[in-house]
Amino acid sequence: MVSASRVTVVGGGVIGLSVAWFAARAGFSVTVVDHASPHGGSRVAGGMLAPITEAWPGDEDVLALGVESLRLWPRFAADLDVPLSAAGTLAVATAPADAEVLDKLCAYLGAMGRSAARLTRRELRALEPGLGPLVRSGLSVPGDLSVDNRALLTALRKACEAHGVHIGRRSTVDTDVTVIAAGAWSRDLHPALRDVIRPVKGEILRLAARPGALPPPRHTIRAHVSGRPVYLVPRADGLVLGATQYEAGFDPHVTVGGVRDLLRDGEAVWPAIAEYALVEAAAGFRAGSPDNMPVVDWLEPAVIAATGHHRNGLLLAPITAHRVLALLRGDPTPEPATDHHSANDHRQAKEAPVEGSGER
Amino acid sequence: MVSASRVTVVGGGVIGLSVAWFAARAGFSVTVVDHASPHGGSRVAGGMLAPITEAWPGDEDVLALGVESLRLWPRFAADLDVPLSAAGTLAVATAPADAEVLDKLCAYLGAMGRSAARLTRRELRALEPGLGPLVRSGLSVPGDLSVDNRALLTALRKACEAHGVHIGRRSTVDTDVTVIAAGAWSRDLHPALRDVIRPVKGEILRLAARPGALPPPRHTIRAHVSGRPVYLVPRADGLVLGATQYEAGFDPHVTVGGVRDLLRDGEAVWPAIAEYALVEAAAGFRAGSPDNMPVVDWLEPAVIAATGHHRNGLLLAPITAHRVLALLRGDPTPEPATDHHSANDHRQAKEAPVEGSGER
Repeated sequence: MVSASRVTVVGGGVIGLSVAWFAARAGFSVTVVDHASPHGGSRVAGGMLAPITEAWPGDEDVLALGVESLRLWPRFAADLDVPLSAAGTLAVATAPADAEVLDKLCAYLGAMGRSAARLTRRELRALEPGLGPLVRSGLSVPGDLSVDNRALLTALRKACEAHGVHIGRRSTVDTDVTVIAAGAWSRDLHPALRDVIRPVKGEILRLAARPGALPPPRHTIRAHVSGRPVYLVPRADGLVLGATQYEAGFDPHVTVGGVRDLLRDGEAVWPAIAEYALVEAAAGFRAGSPDNMPVVDWLEPAVIAATGHHRNGLLLAPITAHRVLALLRGDPTPEPATDHHSANDHRQAKEAPVEGSGER
Repeated sequence: MVSASRVTVVGGGVIGLSVAWFAARAGFSVTVVDHASPHGGSRVAGGMLAPITEAWPGDEDVLALGVESLRLWPRFAADLDVPLSAAGTLAVATAPADAEVLDKLCAYLGAMGRSAARLTRRELRALEPGLGPLVRSGLSVPGDLSVDNRALLTALRKACEAHGVHIGRRSTVDTDVTVIAAGAWSRDLHPALRDVIRPVKGEILRLAARPGALPPPRHTIRAHVSGRPVYLVPRADGLVLGATQYEAGFDPHVTVGGVRDLLRDGEAVWPAIAEYALVEAAAGFRAGSPDNMPVVDWLEPAVIAATGHHRNGLLLAPITAHRVLALLRGDPTPEPATDHHSANDHRQAKEAPVEGSGER
């Protein structure tokens, strides 16, 4: 719709870098402005690519979009030479009320035509012998992937630079189009985003298995412990343990209460972590939106938004990059299954089915 | 005993820098070799100068030496322009078995001629309204001081440099005397220390009060919670919460189990910390010795040891520096109340009473 050749992307997280890489690869001249916050959502994240275990009644759009993007991930990762873990997810529960959450998820996934198998205590332990004695029931969910989010960011940066993208803290260059991909901070970059995007604070811990300690699980484990959700995403040398969720504005602090909850709940799920090293405790900001769906569209003639990915920024990176590239090209039939709700009424992209959209 | 003019101090912690400062001020030409480990005991420490609440039956020598050094602290701190906190210590207990520890400490301090007053729940809360409901009894111990250990290290470094001390990671200069003041690492620097000094690992957390949270206590709080000792040392903007204690060699990791215990016990004592920021979690190595007493003496004609200070490195810095200076000067009547047990038999310093030794 705009014949753009120079693109400035504001934001060097997974969305910004994916957009920049796709645009540069397609021939645009791209600059990334990145303030490299230690609280950026994709840097702090756990790296789950998990639309299915993230599914919940009422969030069908999120599930469909996530599943669509998940299909793009193997190619996306291969192009970046970043390994994916395909061991799948175990959703587990401790107290009876937690098990009811699994029942509900299992029934919902069944109704959505997805396989999810309830597991007994014994079956759970056959899959993951290190689960704690409080873990009483579970659900095996195939299909979800995971990625080392920091390895991904490094690879994206390298891919960008290989395609001539300039990445810096400031930009005074002339540009034809600006892409606002600054996660939670996007709200301060355009009036149309002000009341749409909000920071959703999360705390997350990185643990390393010390010599002699039981290794991390093979699967990603998503647990409900006394009503609190917690996840353990295995890494080569340990695991990522997350995540709290607060509506606390841009408060950047890792709180004692948050760490206490994560450690307690994580230890209930995987007791061996008591002997792990606490390598990092970090707080990050997800870019929340009113309906948990991202905002990927024109805000005005020279400004595109690519934000509001909430808990799914990593998962939705490929489909967001495809969608923004289509917008930049003025493509009249952009990729489907992306989100089209606009933050204002300047543009209304057309929606059209294309191959591979059968997941919806 | 040696007419030394050039002194090399190995170790840039509180002992090494104090020795270097005293020696340089006395006219010696001093070099400090410092590897600046993030695990150095005096960097990781909480900053209590607490011989009295540290006292325990059987450790009378440690108490006497500590009390002697505590008397030197006001002048030592004033010369360095470092503020001291003199609010004193509250020793508190939760479970009945923990209260018995206080009974024992109270009786022991009484027998040693020191004042320590038992406090009721009500009296405790009049002093520190933020104490948790599980804290049932306490003991007010006047006299102990505390210092911001990192401000102290900075001030010592500055004082050294003002007196011409060269501080670096390596030294190839000729020297007349070497002072081994490398804390737990001293064991690897001289055969005579090999079986005497051992690392005693400790983990410690630094917390900052977030806006709106209850401020830290005014007193240093030493607590026994379900048999585990924990202390909270107030700082201007928060507190230091410590410390675990392990015989685990030089394992440098902060463990999940250690952090979990510190947070749980700290929260039992001062619930408001749940809303504090977890700023740092660190592991350090105390220089343990068989009898908990430091080794400050000649090891051979050109080598002095100043190590083995265990939990009391900050407290014992002034008296250690005085003692090493006396050794360097060949002073036949060194300061009393320092420790004189030798790691070997090369030298045996004489002991003589001087003013101010009435504490023994």
